[in-house]
Amino acid sequence: MNYKLVFRLLGRLLLMEAALMVPSLAVALIYREGDAMAFVYTIVLTAVCGIPALLLKPQRDDLTARDGMAVAGLSWVILSFFGALPFVFSRAMPSLADAYFETCSGFSTTGSTILTEIESLPRGVLFWRSFTHWIGGMGVLVLTVAILPRLSGRTAHLARAESPGPTFSKLLPKMSDTAKMLYGLYLGLTVIEAVLLLAAGMNVYDALIHAFGTAGTGGFSNYNNSIAHFSPLIQWIIAVFMMLFGVNFTIYFHLVRREKEPILQNEELWAYLGITLTITLIITFNILPQTKEGFFTALRNAFFQVTAIASTTGFSTANFDAWPLLSRVLLMVLLCVGACAGSTAGGFKLSRVLLLGKSAYRDLEHTLQPRKVAVVRFEGKPVQESTLAQLGVYLFLWLGLAGCGTLLLAVFQKTDLGTAVTATLTCLSNVGPGLNRVGPTGNFAFFSTPAKVLLSFLMLAGRLEIYPILILFSPTVWKKN
Amino acid sequence: MNYKLVFRLLGRLLLMEAALMVPSLAVALIYREGDAMAFVYTIVLTAVCGIPALLLKPQRDDLTARDGMAVAGLSWVILSFFGALPFVFSRAMPSLADAYFETCSGFSTTGSTILTEIESLPRGVLFWRSFTHWIGGMGVLVLTVAILPRLSGRTAHLARAESPGPTFSKLLPKMSDTAKMLYGLYLGLTVIEAVLLLAAGMNVYDALIHAFGTAGTGGFSNYNNSIAHFSPLIQWIIAVFMMLFGVNFTIYFHLVRREKEPILQNEELWAYLGITLTITLIITFNILPQTKEGFFTALRNAFFQVTAIASTTGFSTANFDAWPLLSRVLLMVLLCVGACAGSTAGGFKLSRVLLLGKSAYRDLEHTLQPRKVAVVRFEGKPVQESTLAQLGVYLFLWLGLAGCGTLLLAVFQKTDLGTAVTATLTCLSNVGPGLNRVGPTGNFAFFSTPAKVLLSFLMLAGRLEIYPILILFSPTVWKKN
Repeated sequence: MNYKLVFRLLGRLLLMEAALMVPSLAVALIYREGDAMAFVYTIVLTAVCGIPALLLKPQRDDLTARDGMAVAGLSWVILSFFGALPFVFSRAMPSLADAYFETCSGFSTTGSTILTEIESLPRGVLFWRSFTHWIGGMGVLVLTVAILPRLSGRTAHLARAESPGPTFSKLLPKMSDTAKMLYGLYLGLTVIEAVLLLAAGMNVYDALIHAFGTAGTGGFSNYNNSIAHFSPLIQWIIAVFMMLFGVNFTIYFHLVRREKEPILQNEELWAYLGITLTITLIITFNILPQTKEGFFTALRNAFFQVTAIASTTGFSTANFDAWPLLSRVLLMVLLCVGACAGSTAGGFKLSRVLLLGKSAYRDLEHTLQPRKVAVVRFEGKPVQESTLAQLGVYLFLWLGLAGCGTLLLAVFQKTDLGTAVTATLTCLSNVGPGLNRVGPTGNFAFFSTPAKVLLSFLMLAGRLEIYPILILFSPTVWKKN
Repeated sequence: MNYKLVFRLLGRLLLMEAALMVPSLAVALIYREGDAMAFVYTIVLTAVCGIPALLLKPQRDDLTARDGMAVAGLSWVILSFFGALPFVFSRAMPSLADAYFETCSGFSTTGSTILTEIESLPRGVLFWRSFTHWIGGMGVLVLTVAILPRLSGRTAHLARAESPGPTFSKLLPKMSDTAKMLYGLYLGLTVIEAVLLLAAGMNVYDALIHAFGTAGTGGFSNYNNSIAHFSPLIQWIIAVFMMLFGVNFTIYFHLVRREKEPILQNEELWAYLGITLTITLIITFNILPQTKEGFFTALRNAFFQVTAIASTTGFSTANFDAWPLLSRVLLMVLLCVGACAGSTAGGFKLSRVLLLGKSAYRDLEHTLQPRKVAVVRFEGKPVQESTLAQLGVYLFLWLGLAGCGTLLLAVFQKTDLGTAVTATLTCLSNVGPGLNRVGPTGNFAFFSTPAKVLLSFLMLAGRLEIYPILILFSPTVWKKN
């Protein structure tokens, strides 16, 4: 590792984080609920830690692929630590482990919470909690849409191993129009949602909090009842935007440039919309018998929960843990699959599932007609065999993390099997709620400290698509070069 | 499909099945419990259906890869149907769906049962029920050890898609020494176990029943309490043999020929033994606090249950559903992984997991050192990239079947999520028991008819490693050629 260069980059990110805390400080100053000093302390401490690193003069200025990936992994671990400090200093959370869990959940846009009582907390703290979603969502977008494809072509975001990882040195000097456009789209969509929420009757503060939660596909709310607190109209608005933020952002890019062809050809988009609507209908009819308020309430609850889970946002308007078995299994499948690649959503990603499905179909065909040589095509282009092979490996790693995660969770925490499995899956997929004790009416407060650390690790690993976090365990990465 | 040839082969298999029912008829005649006529009817009916097919004269006598695979899939579906008839004619089971489920469970060596009360059934019927395990185990051995590797080299059993499927035409004319040796080993190990069980105090009938159940890694017992009915010594014997039947049979082949090198090099074997013993120790200490009888009982129960689940036999001596969470999660992981390829065990197979693990490690290394070109080596030999790619596809298909299976089960049967998930997994892995309502003290009787048909399908698909069953849904296979 080129320590000087890596530290320098991490220092720059810490200063950025300190700057990003200023709006929360402003909110704390406006509402005067005793949390302003927590931000002042944190901002000073973060800046003090960041500035010396900036003074380092690395001998070589080019970041290797390995170091780039290590920076990506390390930065999320470290930014989460500093991001947790306002929660600690304001005494909003009982321990550092709780605060760290909550911040990882924020930055990774998971939305799992250790808070049992949210509404009594100071508004500056809650603003920062939701703002971490928005920052995290943007960070992921930059990583998967702006950086990786430029490094190794169209399918890079589908197979992380293939790409040499994010290299900030390449990004920063030529922050291209693509990246700017991306920021613009992200900001624009967030503003449109906030304005619509305002128009539907929310106050400014709540509108911002929920726009942040939707945009990052995170899921923190400042109400104990999540979105059930609000009117049906607001629920519809948020549901639609959850769906929109689960779409690959290159689609909006093409929309703005009025390019029809790439949108029509985007198989993932149409599969995503088709699956969302089909499952919404199935669940609507499945929960209809137990919905006293009738069809449209069932439809709203079904659509809201499907978009909330598929986009891995994790807001809730109903206790879906009490829904029939079929609905719960469908939601669990959506929880693992997630939404489109290149969105702020987590999970395994629909494009990977589609590609593996096509690959399986090709293999079956090959079994029947061994002499026929078929190439897997995706969105009009042939897919390299190495990409397909790496997808299988990624699936294996994902399952391995889920399996080992559940095992370790069973060591660290006495609970039931359903809770252990769905807590692991919901964190790895960056969704938020699971079933049983971590269901929509539960929370993660009861977990032991090692269990919270484990789940924090899973949230970051899931968010960064595993590799940047896993390589931090390799001694090779830490060798001085 | 070359219909005449396929029918001819199926006819031959039906006659073989009729012949294999004769021992059960003999048992029925010895005990005179009213089930002899059920066998007479079935044997006559099976033979009558089989003989006309033998008279067909196919124009071409060579079986294509496609037809070979179709025969493999079809034969298990059809043999299970005829195998179910004694249960129907003797009125031992309430319906044809129940009888079909039980026979699929037998031939696929799963061991899940729809019987709530076993001990009152006539002994001829119970003998046939357990004998199906023994036949199924042998069928799988012949498929995966004798036929596939000869067709496409060493790794064929690891990646079904690569191999052109079992071609009976190639097998039958030159039933080689390898296959004979294999039958000898299977028979020999079964006889040794039966003799040891006799020496430990079992009667001849029980010894045969349980030797069949162990050899096929099936798990049917003729006692409601399964192996808890017997003494600790008998439990140890069965546990050791369950472990032995989960080992790749080529190991015994080498043992008999006194070839040390291939045994020492067999990574899967040592991983299997290491995992079995490690997990046994973990579970022993995990269940020790709740085991009143002390350490050795805990060790015996742990070792028995680990070998029973890892080898996918599914016998039980304790209600492991009441064990601590960690033990249950470990057993669930074993349930999915299974034992060694080339054994009678089901599941995903340890060698596949090892290969995917090595492949993942290689990819991580590649991320860190992009210029280094590394080849995955397994048991001393390099593994082809196409084999690795197909492993990922197989994993995806396996998960896809598990996911779709759970979804359909949720449609067909009202039950809890844990039951639905573990019922699907235990059938797909050919283990037998799951958790909750299908736990070691439960059974599959309560499932609806479509649910039983679905689970029967999953048992066969899991047993034949998916492809031979899946291709039956392709119209290409059914086209006349």
